[in-house]
Amino acid sequence: MNACPIPSPADTEFATSAQVEVEKWRDGQREVVTDVVAEEVPIALEYNGISHAVMMATPADLEDFALGFSLTEGILADPSELYDCEIVQGAEGIQVQMNVATERFVALKEKRRNLTGRTGCGLCGAETLEQAVRHPAAVHADALRFSAETLHAALESMQTQQELQKQTGATHAAAWLGRDGNIKLVREDVGRHNALDKLIGALAEDKQDFSSGAVIITSRASYEMVQKAATVGIGFIAAISAPTALAIRLAKETDVTLIGFVRRQGHVVYAGPHRLI
Amino acid sequence: MNACPIPSPADTEFATSAQVEVEKWRDGQREVVTDVVAEEVPIALEYNGISHAVMMATPADLEDFALGFSLTEGILADPSELYDCEIVQGAEGIQVQMNVATERFVALKEKRRNLTGRTGCGLCGAETLEQAVRHPAAVHADALRFSAETLHAALESMQTQQELQKQTGATHAAAWLGRDGNIKLVREDVGRHNALDKLIGALAEDKQDFSSGAVIITSRASYEMVQKAATVGIGFIAAISAPTALAIRLAKETDVTLIGFVRRQGHVVYAGPHRLI
Repeated sequence: MNACPIPSPADTEFATSAQVEVEKWRDGQREVVTDVVAEEVPIALEYNGISHAVMMATPADLEDFALGFSLTEGILADPSELYDCEIVQGAEGIQVQMNVATERFVALKEKRRNLTGRTGCGLCGAETLEQAVRHPAAVHADALRFSAETLHAALESMQTQQELQKQTGATHAAAWLGRDGNIKLVREDVGRHNALDKLIGALAEDKQDFSSGAVIITSRASYEMVQKAATVGIGFIAAISAPTALAIRLAKETDVTLIGFVRRQGHVVYAGPHRLI
Repeated sequence: MNACPIPSPADTEFATSAQVEVEKWRDGQREVVTDVVAEEVPIALEYNGISHAVMMATPADLEDFALGFSLTEGILADPSELYDCEIVQGAEGIQVQMNVATERFVALKEKRRNLTGRTGCGLCGAETLEQAVRHPAAVHADALRFSAETLHAALESMQTQQELQKQTGATHAAAWLGRDGNIKLVREDVGRHNALDKLIGALAEDKQDFSSGAVIITSRASYEMVQKAATVGIGFIAAISAPTALAIRLAKETDVTLIGFVRRQGHVVYAGPHRLI
């Protein structure tokens, strides 16, 4: 079942890149060429008719994004709580209109009532420090093990599948590495949080066991990336760039294996070394 | 005048990096070493006693951040409207308590009243598509010109001044390139928007003319980066990585020169080529 039935292709297929005429300079020589750049569109996420947030994102895989965001932000506890959603083009961007379980909508409304007359940004819906730092439960991914060779090979395999990045050089990706060492799924977005949300939404839709694999991200590993992954029970994150100190602390607290600077020849283990063979 | 007098050094000097013990793997060999990672701290921005937003940021140059964020988000129109601010360590993060002009606080409250019971994320305070896309006025930077050689040299100079990046590999930077071709100021942060806000805050504090130089950023150029720069009248943005299509459209609309992929040997001009010699 696809929780987000697409009303009609005409309504929901959006361009993810655009062609622009640019001046390319190299060694003092100018050349006018056509370049391909990534689209970036305001996406309004609505629950039961109430607008909740606007994210700047790549307009692709929006059903995955809707479900993933809802799960990683703790708005929904289970994919079955998303009854349906429609994706509608508006004048200034795209509306993702979700219909969710009444119980969850009441909880969201209650949280919003507590923020009456206030707006939050940076961290989703967080406006005071107490709201900013969530503490997800420890993950259960005890049997999960990967070797260094598997990680390095997966990184190369992932890179060949980053179609939008190859065209535009402007997008991040998040990939799912299965227990068998193969990349199962890749999602891309101009925002790294969105790429992760899209991946998690697609995996949830597919009823994947989050403790059975690893996420590889092309970005740095910030606190929010670990928080999103731990919230749904992902126990292994490998990032191409550096983690922050807070991300490492949260990874240790939730027993998530956190690896940084994954390259062809090496990597650095910041938390949970027991999942490395 | 420093708009953000620091109450006492003990209260306001925060560590920007931390040491962690890690396992470094290279060519199949494991080594346990001490690594330096960037701190990332929830920063609550408060106006006249009301909490407005929480951003994950590097806890340095927070006075610059407070002023810069207030200006680029259109909360304040002029640095003189920030009367004072205090930086206070809380249990879960840092509070930046600003005291601003009554007129501005009333406008902010009015905006917040319109969002009653709602929260926004992703884009600051934006929760509907109409709020997401702001249209800053065109900039006035008609006399500004830079040569390719100046940009390339400035990039190298900037990189030698990214102290936190050298230690941690996890931070972005925004630098101010003066009309004379020299880097005047560099600000760093785990978030690229924050680095830009810190730079703009420091320049505003110093009463710099925003039409007299260029911003160089170590990240991609997203819509929000152009929006923040154009809002204060910056007419020239050079990014090390790619821009998005929406960023290019906004740059053309506001007559901002937007350059991407600035490297030692070349660059690409996406908007406003008339400011390149």
